[in-house]
This record gives sequence, C-alpha cells and structure tokens, in this order.
Amino acid sequence: MKTLTEMGKDALTAKRAIAKLTTGDKNQLLLSCAEALRHNCDSIISANAIDLDNGRENGIKASLIDRLTLNRDRIFAMAEGLEQIAELPDPIGQFENMKTLPNGLIVGQKRVPMGVIGIIYEARPNVTSDAFGLCIKAGSAVILRGGKEAINSNRAVVSVFKDSIRAMGIDENIVQLVEDTSRESANQMMKMNGYIDVLIPRGGAGLIQSVVQNSTVPVIETGVGNCHVFADESADIDMAVNIIVNAKAQRPGVCNAAETFLVHKNIAEKLLPPAVAALRKKGVEIRGDERVQAVIPDVKPATEEDWATEYLDYILAVKVVDSIDEAIDHIAKYSTGHSECIVSQSYENTQRFLNEIDSAAVYVNASTRFTDGNEFGFGAEIGISTQKLHARGPMGLKELTTTKYVIYGNGQVRK
Amino acid sequence: MKTLTEMGKDALTAKRAIAKLTTGDKNQLLLSCAEALRHNCDSIISANAIDLDNGRENGIKASLIDRLTLNRDRIFAMAEGLEQIAELPDPIGQFENMKTLPNGLIVGQKRVPMGVIGIIYEARPNVTSDAFGLCIKAGSAVILRGGKEAINSNRAVVSVFKDSIRAMGIDENIVQLVEDTSRESANQMMKMNGYIDVLIPRGGAGLIQSVVQNSTVPVIETGVGNCHVFADESADIDMAVNIIVNAKAQRPGVCNAAETFLVHKNIAEKLLPPAVAALRKKGVEIRGDERVQAVIPDVKPATEEDWATEYLDYILAVKVVDSIDEAIDHIAKYSTGHSECIVSQSYENTQRFLNEIDSAAVYVNASTRFTDGNEFGFGAEIGISTQKLHARGPMGLKELTTTKYVIYGNGQVRK
Repeated sequence: MKTLTEMGKDALTAKRAIAKLTTGDKNQLLLSCAEALRHNCDSIISANAIDLDNGRENGIKASLIDRLTLNRDRIFAMAEGLEQIAELPDPIGQFENMKTLPNGLIVGQKRVPMGVIGIIYEARPNVTSDAFGLCIKAGSAVILRGGKEAINSNRAVVSVFKDSIRAMGIDENIVQLVEDTSRESANQMMKMNGYIDVLIPRGGAGLIQSVVQNSTVPVIETGVGNCHVFADESADIDMAVNIIVNAKAQRPGVCNAAETFLVHKNIAEKLLPPAVAALRKKGVEIRGDERVQAVIPDVKPATEEDWATEYLDYILAVKVVDSIDEAIDHIAKYSTGHSECIVSQSYENTQRFLNEIDSAAVYVNASTRFTDGNEFGFGAEIGISTQKLHARGPMGLKELTTTKYVIYGNGQVRK
Repeated sequence: MKTLTEMGKDALTAKRAIAKLTTGDKNQLLLSCAEALRHNCDSIISANAIDLDNGRENGIKASLIDRLTLNRDRIFAMAEGLEQIAELPDPIGQFENMKTLPNGLIVGQKRVPMGVIGIIYEARPNVTSDAFGLCIKAGSAVILRGGKEAINSNRAVVSVFKDSIRAMGIDENIVQLVEDTSRESANQMMKMNGYIDVLIPRGGAGLIQSVVQNSTVPVIETGVGNCHVFADESADIDMAVNIIVNAKAQRPGVCNAAETFLVHKNIAEKLLPPAVAALRKKGVEIRGDERVQAVIPDVKPATEEDWATEYLDYILAVKVVDSIDEAIDHIAKYSTGHSECIVSQSYENTQRFLNEIDSAAVYVNASTRFTDGNEFGFGAEIGISTQKLHARGPMGLKELTTTKYVIYGNGQVRK
C-alpha cells in the first residue's frame, strides 16, 4: 500500500502527463473507461456485494445500504455520465483578456488545469466515477478518498479505469484511490500542501465541516443548504403553495431543498391553510412559531434550533414575519448561503430580495430545487459551492480549472 | 477595546450597508478620504513619530524604520492611490452568462461583494490606506490587522477615514482596525468563519505561511516568489544579459525579482562572462554550481539550499543545465509558482516552456519584474496570488469580489 506522500509524489508526475493530453485524448480515455465499466459490470457488482455484506454485518442503516448499492443500471448510468462529460466543451486552453500593452508585451490569461485535485467523499461509489470523469476532463490528476463502506466497490471501479488508462499508454497515476480509509488518511490529505492544489469534500455537513476546519490545502466548501422560501405579502397564493411544496417535498434529502418557509403576516391566514394541507399530503411535518400555531392550531412548535437546522427530511419550519425586512434579517442570520426564494408580485420587493440576500442562488418565483449544474445547463457538476472564493453555486468543469498569465515579449525590461 | 467577535458582528452589519452603496457613493467616499488624508497630514505624521520612536527604542533595523516612516510625500501618495482607485471601473453589479433556460427561467451570475475581507499585514502603514480603498471600492467591509510597530500610524489613518465615513452618514464599521496586535489576535482572525469571508496576508514568507497553515477562513496566498530566468541554447546573448540583470537587480526586494538563473550548457561559455560581469556591476553576489564555477572560477559555490531560497537581496543562484527538460524539471521542483521566464529564439522551446511551466506568470523574452497589477493594466493590486484557487497572479478589484446566481421565474417548479 502506497503512503499518501508517495501518492502525492506520483500525482505530481502524473499531473504533468495529463496536462499534455489533447481534448481528443481525454475524450477517448473517458469513452474507453465508460465502455470498460459496462464490460466489467459483473466484477464491479461482485466487489460491491462484499461492501454490502460488510455493511449489513456492521448494521449500517437501510438508506446507506441503498446509496452503497451498485447494480447493472447504476453502473451503466456511471458509464453514461462519463460519455456525457466527454461531450462537454473542454475549458482547458482557452485564452481570456489577451491584449498588447503599450510597451509591446502581449499579456493574457490561459485556462489551465488545477494540477492535482483531492476528493474526500462518503458511501456513494458513483462519486468515484463522476469525480474521476470531471477531474480528468479538466486536465488534472485526482486523488480519491472514499468512505470505508465502499472501499471494495471503489477499488473495482478505479482498477477498471486504470486498465483503460494503461492501455492508452498514459501514466496510470492520473487517478489514485486512497486505500487507507481511516480518519487519519483524510486528515493527512488535508495537510498535503505542495501535492494537492484543491480539496473538495462531498458528503454530509459533518464531513464538510471537518475538512473546512482542518485543511491547510485550499478547500471548496460544498453543499450544506439551509434554504428558505419567503412568501411576500403580494405572493400569488397558488404559486406560493406550488413552490414551497416542490422546494420541500420533491426530494427532501438534497441540499437545495427548502428547510424554512417564511410567510408575510398579511397573507398568513390565506396562505397557511392550503400550504400546510398540501405539504401534509406529501407527508411533511410542520413546525411553526406562535403566529403559525394561531392559524394552524395542531402544528408542532418550532424552537430556535429549528431555524438553524438542515433537516434533509420531510420536516419544514414555518415562521410568520412582519415584513420583507424581517424575512431578509432572518435569512441573514440562519441561512447557510445556498439558495433562497421570494414569492412576490412586488417589483420593489423582488429587487430588494435579489440585491440584499447574500446566497449562492437567489430566486424570484421559482423553486430552490433548480440550483443544480444540470438544471443550469452545465451538463455536469462536482458539487454546489456555498463559499465565495473561486466558485459559488453549481460547479461545472470550468470551476475545476485555473488560469495562468502568459506573456510574450521581445526583450522588454522594467524601467 | 472591542473584542474580535464584536468586530465581526459589527462587520456583518456594515457589509450590508456598504453593499447598498452605489458606485458614485463609493467614489465620493474615496475622494473625501483622500482629501482628509492630505488635510490631516500633520496629525498622521505625529502619530507616526510615536511608532518611529518606539521602533528605535526597540532597536528595529533601519530598513524596517524606512518602511514604517510616513512623511508628507508618502501620505500624499496614499491619497493619490485612493483617487486612482476611485477612477477604476466598478466590477460590482456586472452580469455574466445571463440566459433563458428552456423552462423559461432566466439565470445569470451577478458580480457582488465578498462581504467582509480581512487583511493581516506587517509594518507598512500605506497598506492600511491601499487595502481600505480597494476593499471599499469592491463593496466589502474590511477588518485590518497591521503590525504592532505601526499601530499608532494605522490608528491615525483609520480615524481619518472614519471621520469621512461618518460625515457621509455611512456605517463607520465598514473599516475596522484590530487594536490588539498580539499574535493571538491574528490567530483568532484566522478562525472567524461566519464573520470573515476571505483573509489576505500581506508580508513576508513567515506571515503568509502562518496564515495558510492556521486559517480556517478561506485564504488568498500572496507573494512568495522564487522566480527563475532560463537562458535557452538559442537565447540572444545581449537580451539574456539585459533580462537577468533587470529581473535580479532592478529592485531585488520584491516578489517578482529573479532568484535563480538557469543557463543552457551550450551557451554557458558565451553568456556567463558578460552576464556575471553586468550583475556584479550592480552589486549582485553570484552563487554557482560546479559548471558555473568552471567558467567563472571566483563564484561562491551554490548549495541545495540556494535553489530553494527567495533571497530578496543582491544575490543570484546560477546553474548550468543540459536541456530545456532539465530547466523545466528544476523549476517544477524549486519554484514557488510565481513568475518564470525563458529567453529563447526557438519556437518549439518557447511553446514548451509556456505550456509546461505551472506558475502564475510565464514569460518569453521579458523580465519577470512585469508581474504587477499596474504593469498589467489593472490600475491597482492587493497582492499577487501564487495559489490556483480564485485568483492567480496580480489581483485587481475583480478578484476582491464574488458572484451570485440570480434567477427570475414565474412559478417554475422542478419535475
């Protein structure tokens, strides 16, 4: 088993190899890996069966077993994912802001690979394939550190990729899997400055906070979403009901699902009864403040903790507010900066909400569930950034790259 | 004295105030601060005199005393700096990639302020004014934490700014100075996630490494430059001499100055004698490997440590290499990723160097000293980023901002 430092050194060599590949080479590699996934479907399923057996033995819960499970459909979907990435335009090599300075120097920014990208993730083996595809297309070597529950599946998938890589005569270390799935290996990855250029955690809030708190390698924080829908005084009632039901209940376990519903006091009596009825029909538990309880007597009381919670479940916190100011203040206090929506017919208030809400995605009259790379038309995403540095919102291929200045001179020196 | 947490809370309020200012408001504030600096020149000089007295009492060295000194010219230069920032185009509010999706949603990215920017710096009081001006124009509140040597000067400058801010009826906490200049206050700032959106260290390698190693707030790493000039086999001898003399000796104390000169073996005998003579004429000490010593017998031997050192002084490490491959490998091993130059007349080799060198600025036939916001035409810079995330190379106003997605719907929900 290679040490992480050895893996880091191998990645430094491999990043120079992959940086030299043309777009055509990279696409051919992705297509060949997709084909190999399909061809080796049975052996991947066998490896996955070991993980599933271990998981059941260790008593992991059913939802995790589901996420961990690979079958023919899921492996074919991973292959299709790689083929879709092959079809995306290559951001590498584009030039931006190229110009000639008064002294004759030609200066511009060339889009280039990050170098080495580290991904720390949990139990979904499909992340192994998705992250590999995006990092490779973005021209970087990738070090994958998945969860211990999926180690046999991940090893099988990476082994299939390495066969395809070697068959094309490319340095197989453009992808490396960390075999040691202890907490120490994750912590060590977070300190690999000089080897890893950026670290992207994909998983629950605990994993992400651990990486943000401990990493000295630059991090892109992804995915924690305490998202809000605010129904303003002038909201169309039917639209507000549709949007909150969709934002909460269409798929509650994802980061762009709504967790708190703020309702202007002047429409509370008209909006809350149909909204709560529609939400409950979808199985959503409502937790309301006193003014919500005044309209809907049988709701569970909301506590301070509810405002700050990302349920990722069929639970919604509901609060009546006096004004758009109170709504904006509440969001400023409790939001994780992911996605927020105003439902309103007021020009002034929609403009204020768009301007004053400091989140990655700010919506007028649409469900927060649209914050997604595919929905926004990027074709694929590595995650949704909730930080302000480098990338904010859904991250596509371009966000996995960087630029360098290139300068063409003919002997210029500085005066 | 406010605690850092109190300052953080005040900054969260102030960032909402400054985000609402128009470009006109911000420019007016900068001009009024510039005027106030000139008007209060004497009181700033008096405050600076206390720092200088303290510094001399504590025996700080002459070069530091020079950096610490404020006089009429330097204060007027600070004022002019603010006026220049007022003239720069405002990046805030620009829209990018705005488009209508098939479902009718209009989606785009709006350029918005970071929110709260933290700057940790050392003894130069002019950074107080420069950083204030850039952060304010970029629409963010700023928390400044300068060195203890300059605390009286910094307090005087910030006090002048706060008077101008209050006079315009703006929240004075858009700029705050950390009065506690202990190491603990810097360490505490590095952990202020939720208050500070980005931390930018400005100063020596020690300060920058301390921030990179300890900060949980996202950091933009600036300024450490172990820069290389490589004279290829086909280099024009005169051009190579001019470029290395300029890159090393025009201003050796800055991050874009060259520290190592790599010379192709086939031109070593022709290039080294005139280059070393010209460098020595400028007072540069040469440290060479064995093959340099073979051509110039009286050079000091270079050690492994020399290849890794950013001298920031009249010292240059010189090495003879067998090929462009050896030059690229040497740079990959020792460079800090700032600026590197090839002097060459070979189309193939210049292209290889531009493609394969992984640094913020890669030059053909020009001095590394051009890596600078003013030289590149940005008008002002907060520093030179040597990291790959968010910004790389000279950082202007745009690099002090972020974007958010704004989405205009009319009731869309996700299927």
